[in-house]
Amino acid sequence: MPALDTPIPAGLLMHTEMHQQPDVLRRLASRATGLANQVRALAENGLRGVAFLARGSSDNAALLGRYAVELSSGLPTCLVAPSILTGYHQTRPRFDRWLLVAASQSGRTPEIITVADRFRQSGAVVIAVTNDTSSDLADAADLAVDLQAGPERAVPATKTVTAQMFVMLAIAAGLGSAGITTTQMTQIPGAVAEVLADPGPVDHLAHRLAPQDRLAVVARGYCYPAALETSLKLQETTGIMAHGFSAADFRHGPIAVCGPHSPAILLAGSGPADDDTRALMPELTHRGTQTATIGTGSGTAAGWPAVGGAGESLLATVRGQQLAYYTAAARGIDPDHPGGLNKVTLTR
Amino acid sequence: MPALDTPIPAGLLMHTEMHQQPDVLRRLASRATGLANQVRALAENGLRGVAFLARGSSDNAALLGRYAVELSSGLPTCLVAPSILTGYHQTRPRFDRWLLVAASQSGRTPEIITVADRFRQSGAVVIAVTNDTSSDLADAADLAVDLQAGPERAVPATKTVTAQMFVMLAIAAGLGSAGITTTQMTQIPGAVAEVLADPGPVDHLAHRLAPQDRLAVVARGYCYPAALETSLKLQETTGIMAHGFSAADFRHGPIAVCGPHSPAILLAGSGPADDDTRALMPELTHRGTQTATIGTGSGTAAGWPAVGGAGESLLATVRGQQLAYYTAAARGIDPDHPGGLNKVTLTR
Repeated sequence: MPALDTPIPAGLLMHTEMHQQPDVLRRLASRATGLANQVRALAENGLRGVAFLARGSSDNAALLGRYAVELSSGLPTCLVAPSILTGYHQTRPRFDRWLLVAASQSGRTPEIITVADRFRQSGAVVIAVTNDTSSDLADAADLAVDLQAGPERAVPATKTVTAQMFVMLAIAAGLGSAGITTTQMTQIPGAVAEVLADPGPVDHLAHRLAPQDRLAVVARGYCYPAALETSLKLQETTGIMAHGFSAADFRHGPIAVCGPHSPAILLAGSGPADDDTRALMPELTHRGTQTATIGTGSGTAAGWPAVGGAGESLLATVRGQQLAYYTAAARGIDPDHPGGLNKVTLTR
Repeated sequence: MPALDTPIPAGLLMHTEMHQQPDVLRRLASRATGLANQVRALAENGLRGVAFLARGSSDNAALLGRYAVELSSGLPTCLVAPSILTGYHQTRPRFDRWLLVAASQSGRTPEIITVADRFRQSGAVVIAVTNDTSSDLADAADLAVDLQAGPERAVPATKTVTAQMFVMLAIAAGLGSAGITTTQMTQIPGAVAEVLADPGPVDHLAHRLAPQDRLAVVARGYCYPAALETSLKLQETTGIMAHGFSAADFRHGPIAVCGPHSPAILLAGSGPADDDTRALMPELTHRGTQTATIGTGSGTAAGWPAVGGAGESLLATVRGQQLAYYTAAARGIDPDHPGGLNKVTLTR
């Protein structure tokens, strides 16, 4: 991994960190079986459910974790709403025998630490997923999973997001046998490298997107977290009002935003929920919407390897990072330092 | 309630149905204690958690239910991701001793019925919240709560959404004592009537919003479901790309979408999470963003009565309905029949 201690030209930090993803994921893949076993050991007395706690990009990784864990284990899963504890002061949360997975790149977001502490006091087992195992969040956890992603200096999180996603899949593999396996996970780093080695189609798409000021990003199932993450990355790096939608909700209302001056991107891979997304194409065409599909199969504007299962969520996420990066460049924006944003979330 | 069996001019259906809300809510308020008792009886053997199942506007009511129930009871709560069962075929969901609250205006959405059946087979108690107790969803439930809202014919759901929200609060009151009580709930119908009798400030705001093509709607805590519902209502009735955001997430990334040509609306009432939303104002002003606050306190562009607690989520929702209705009118769109949308969600 290159040293990052000297000033670097605009856009290069994000670009460099995106391209570190295959190495970061390879390191995690080599630890996946061990991680899954650690999680299995934590759960050996039986779990009642698995909760995920995060903000921003980490919350999109958490959403993938939620899908993967509920599919692998059948256990109830939820995304925590921190304000119930921090704002409204719910004083007796009943999460005994739950597993809480708290994800924070820095491990320093105060509300995440506060809520993780409260869950632990109420009887939950806590896994911290961070890029800094000396952080307060890691200290407060029963198991601290180190992303080992190296310092992330660009404001838009990239390598730490896919690393968190990968760890979520390892946790899912530790909690049940349906869906992804650690063997399948070994394919992911190479597939991410393939996507990163093929930026041309997304660069082309980015030049079409650059003059637009709004965009719908639509997906379902495993690609849905990637649609939310792609939208967030576009919002923060380009200022475009990108909006992630579930295909199931989109067709019954929000599709009304689409038309000749309001494009759409569909993220659709080889999974069982993805045809539902592709089925939107005739209606979007009827509305005169400029629509591009990114994913697997014929007719895609940009592809990814059909590795199947939850792994494709990471490939969709990387395609979304490329889209944000090249669209920012086409708009003349420095994606490393988008206007007025700070790296570490300090919500209390 | 006026008869709705004859053709009615454009916009009048939505307007009529919005103005039926105080009556619909008064009927529900008179049943609130009874409903809470029925829910308490269903839960008497002890619950492990409460799951909410819905799509579209009903999903925003479900989100309010999730906040209210977790606050009142401390129980784990979650919003169900239907594709885990319908797309990925999780075959052994482990929701024994859970309560599932399934909300569907029509009670006819196939995926909602399928998932509710699966939860029941896995040991969950099911409450159906519908506007048609002869529907398949009502048939499949242990308790069918009739919204008694009368036929809803406008495509944008209004009275059924606030009715669902009200029922969610009654369910929360049945499951615990923290937060809202059925006594507080009796204030809601009158407060909704006050908001409906004061459309002027929102009509004024709508004329400022009508030329825009994108909008951030920001809130936190109990007002957050209303921010999502306001955005959805604006999307489907006006075609504006409105995006609901949590204030906590917004300031650390998505705020980059805001600027001189990208306005923001803050929904902020008298609750403990609402100051976090108001705290965004200096940064939005710094960005040159046209920002209006709707809620309680001084400096609001449009107000609502400070009834406190979850009830203000309904008031924020009604303000959002007004905003969608008057913005559609100002853009020359018939809000009763926005382009190409159907009333009943038929996702499988």
